[in-house]
Amino acid sequence: MIVLGIDPGTRRVGYGIIRADGNALGLIEAGLLKTTHPDEREALSEMRTHLAKLIARHRPTVLAIEKLFFAKNRATALRVAQARGVILETAIGAGLTVREFAPNEVKLGIAGDGRAGKQAIAKMVKLFLGRPTLSLIDDASDAVAIAILGARHGAGR
Amino acid sequence: MIVLGIDPGTRRVGYGIIRADGNALGLIEAGLLKTTHPDEREALSEMRTHLAKLIARHRPTVLAIEKLFFAKNRATALRVAQARGVILETAIGAGLTVREFAPNEVKLGIAGDGRAGKQAIAKMVKLFLGRPTLSLIDDASDAVAIAILGARHGAGR
Repeated sequence: MIVLGIDPGTRRVGYGIIRADGNALGLIEAGLLKTTHPDEREALSEMRTHLAKLIARHRPTVLAIEKLFFAKNRATALRVAQARGVILETAIGAGLTVREFAPNEVKLGIAGDGRAGKQAIAKMVKLFLGRPTLSLIDDASDAVAIAILGARHGAGR
Repeated sequence: MIVLGIDPGTRRVGYGIIRADGNALGLIEAGLLKTTHPDEREALSEMRTHLAKLIARHRPTVLAIEKLFFAKNRATALRVAQARGVILETAIGAGLTVREFAPNEVKLGIAGDGRAGKQAIAKMVKLFLGRPTLSLIDDASDAVAIAILGARHGAGR
């Protein structure tokens, strides 16, 4: 099973693609999808194109993504929700199954602590992938963590 | 110029398509795009399909849509924002230019009162279109009002 994990954002969307064979997890690719168009609405279309290419390249069957949440900054929350809608629709249109996890579920599931920090998450991601020297930026590391959770829940949920 | 006006929502999206030749406005079609899939994420994809067909049929060049706003119910606001992201992306991907208007701008622009009610809007929509006997449901009437404003702002803004 190939799982695409996404940490939603507007201009920078972290992604992580992993392969799961039973309990064995392997990293395929992780990074950032960045949009550059000055008009944020045009950037939604740019994001869709980037994501569709990524899906076409690796053919994941599951999208694991953070649940909608209420950021302190409401304007930011709405803008992230818009981008998240495009991400969901792109994945669903490509036939992926969607699994959603709340931020504290990701932290609890990966680091055993619902309030774990980004460093603790990154450390556990490396352990789960058997890649102790892996160095990912935070958004990509978080996305891989979400993908790992998605792989664990498999076809259920 | 053909303008598509959209009143965003999750399950019911009001739309109005008008033709504007100088100051002359004509209604082409108005109604609701409804999604039926029980999974709201799948419904995002359904919405994209409905909207893409509508755009292909009438070939509008402008999308006029309400600005992101903060509903009293935050969960609803985020869900509408997700759907709105899909709507924007679909229109932009099809080459439309986007014009956004705040709800009070629509009311002020159409009824001359930033706090006008739905009935006042509906009445003015009929006047502007020269269709006194037209009977549209609220969401569609609001969408036509937004389209009229979009037509008025034309290529500017």
